[in-house]
Amino acid sequence: MTRADNLVALLEERELDCLLVSNLVNVRYLTGFTGTNGACVVTRDERLFLTDSRYVEQAKQQVSEFERLAARRELLGDLAARLSGRAGFDDAHVSVKAHAALAEKAPEGVELVPAGGLVEQLRAIKDDDELAAIRAATELADGAYARLREDGLAGRKEREVARWVARFLEDSGADEVSFPPIVAGGAHGALPHAFPRDVEIERGVLVVIDLGARLDGYCSDCTRTFATGELSDRATEAYEAVLSAQAGALEQVRAGAVCKEVDAAARDAVQKRLGVGFDHGLGHGVGLEVHEGPRLASTAEGELEAGNVVTVEPGVYLPGEFGIRIEDLVAVTSDGPDVMTGFPKELVTVDG
Amino acid sequence: MTRADNLVALLEERELDCLLVSNLVNVRYLTGFTGTNGACVVTRDERLFLTDSRYVEQAKQQVSEFERLAARRELLGDLAARLSGRAGFDDAHVSVKAHAALAEKAPEGVELVPAGGLVEQLRAIKDDDELAAIRAATELADGAYARLREDGLAGRKEREVARWVARFLEDSGADEVSFPPIVAGGAHGALPHAFPRDVEIERGVLVVIDLGARLDGYCSDCTRTFATGELSDRATEAYEAVLSAQAGALEQVRAGAVCKEVDAAARDAVQKRLGVGFDHGLGHGVGLEVHEGPRLASTAEGELEAGNVVTVEPGVYLPGEFGIRIEDLVAVTSDGPDVMTGFPKELVTVDG
Repeated sequence: MTRADNLVALLEERELDCLLVSNLVNVRYLTGFTGTNGACVVTRDERLFLTDSRYVEQAKQQVSEFERLAARRELLGDLAARLSGRAGFDDAHVSVKAHAALAEKAPEGVELVPAGGLVEQLRAIKDDDELAAIRAATELADGAYARLREDGLAGRKEREVARWVARFLEDSGADEVSFPPIVAGGAHGALPHAFPRDVEIERGVLVVIDLGARLDGYCSDCTRTFATGELSDRATEAYEAVLSAQAGALEQVRAGAVCKEVDAAARDAVQKRLGVGFDHGLGHGVGLEVHEGPRLASTAEGELEAGNVVTVEPGVYLPGEFGIRIEDLVAVTSDGPDVMTGFPKELVTVDG
Repeated sequence: MTRADNLVALLEERELDCLLVSNLVNVRYLTGFTGTNGACVVTRDERLFLTDSRYVEQAKQQVSEFERLAARRELLGDLAARLSGRAGFDDAHVSVKAHAALAEKAPEGVELVPAGGLVEQLRAIKDDDELAAIRAATELADGAYARLREDGLAGRKEREVARWVARFLEDSGADEVSFPPIVAGGAHGALPHAFPRDVEIERGVLVVIDLGARLDGYCSDCTRTFATGELSDRATEAYEAVLSAQAGALEQVRAGAVCKEVDAAARDAVQKRLGVGFDHGLGHGVGLEVHEGPRLASTAEGELEAGNVVTVEPGVYLPGEFGIRIEDLVAVTSDGPDVMTGFPKELVTVDG
């Protein structure tokens, strides 16, 4: 069964005759194509891939299971002509303008049906090759933490450390970072999405470092919070509370676990011990994108399935004081969590 | 007149009561906000900016001319409630799904009107601060070429050079590269959008190097083609032809010039001298995005205006042999071209 075959099964459930796939990440997942302009149409009997003249050579090398067609750079017109019957499209990705063009150019009798999320549903379950790629990307991230532990943080600027991380990951073999690294010391760490500043990291503070590598297209994502010296009792206690909540949540990660229950357990544990919670979800899927399905959040529906890869990342954020987040990347199996992240989670004090 | 005031004038031309601005680049242009989740609504009398709790502090510092509202992370519902009358939205950016949610949540009497491109129209004319930012970003790019000329190219891998460029620009003060640098030696240069390879650059070949820096949000974009030793007569002649076409096109760049005529002149000049043309447009606008309006292309409409900033980048691509592209960044004035790029265009032989 190819990925496109699996997609056809979903089309039949939705009574769709074909699916137009225009989101490039989904196109890559189905066809292997990594260029910046491509789309495909999948029916029970046909697998069509379209790109423009710039990428015809590249597609020859990358796309083997789809019939390849060269199209005009604005692919929509050529795509529309290949649609038939009840034609699904990704309503979360296709713009109103593109939809109007599709509707105008599609053959008579074509009904455009909103059908976002089908390829994403497949992508949420990783196969062995995908798991291996994510694991390798995770090892690169582990290597960055190991070097940070050696080299220390105090006296370095957040932005300089963030740039060092990106370069280290590239030099270790990553395609690139999977997102711009977060390096946030002291009170700045209380912003969950802190932007690294041209400010030196102080001694005796907590430093949140959230980073990931992309390797062969697949992402890793990890957070560790280091100390740059002796901490207050309050900070130490908060670290222990987050660590304990993270470990507790990890234990619940297995096929069949209810996503929002895993989230609630960690959230409640932090809240109970520290009197504050965290404002973001406990975790999210990781794969070709650093944020994909499934979600571990209070508003998430459904259960974890074997083959999911998710982050588990509770945190605590005390404005004006500090932030703490501990995040592992975990493959879901029917037996429990297969934790990919290897770097230790106990509080590491650098600059000792 | 603020940028939002200028936008109101365009709303009135279109008989719109308000405009929903959701594209983050446009939001930044209007409000100054640089976070990853924000939107605004502009009417004759109101300027509303919405972001979620993560960015409230940042917005306080960046957004001064708009009323700031904290909203749920999925901003659409809160935005919809603020629309009135004939409400324009960016149909090239808003997805079919988001549009359906807007339509459902908007107050009764609101008519959603496709109105993409209005902010882009303003962005095409740069003010003095924008010109200064682009000029500074262009100087960083010039510095990268100067170092490449000194350090040479032969024997280095394309990918290593591309990474060096990115790091050099960052270390020179850039926010980041404005796009992944292209470094393409020999026959690989015949792909206009070549991806840098783990392959050593040879002696005696042409190397296309297309790079740009982003500084304070504004992009630069430049291409030079270096020689790594003595070239064939054919390659030398092709270089001279492209250089001459580029210089000829530059002379035509002034307010009032017809965009497709500037394109045609360069295209015809290359075609006439070498018997082959180039498959891409002669140029494009550059600003907060590295590709924006206006376009210099055979399908472009309209004329250049004072305050436009465009690339002028003819090329020639001979499959299996070599590619050449020479690209300057130019501000359009009523008196003619104000060429920002400073690095020389005469054929530079490195590794001498």
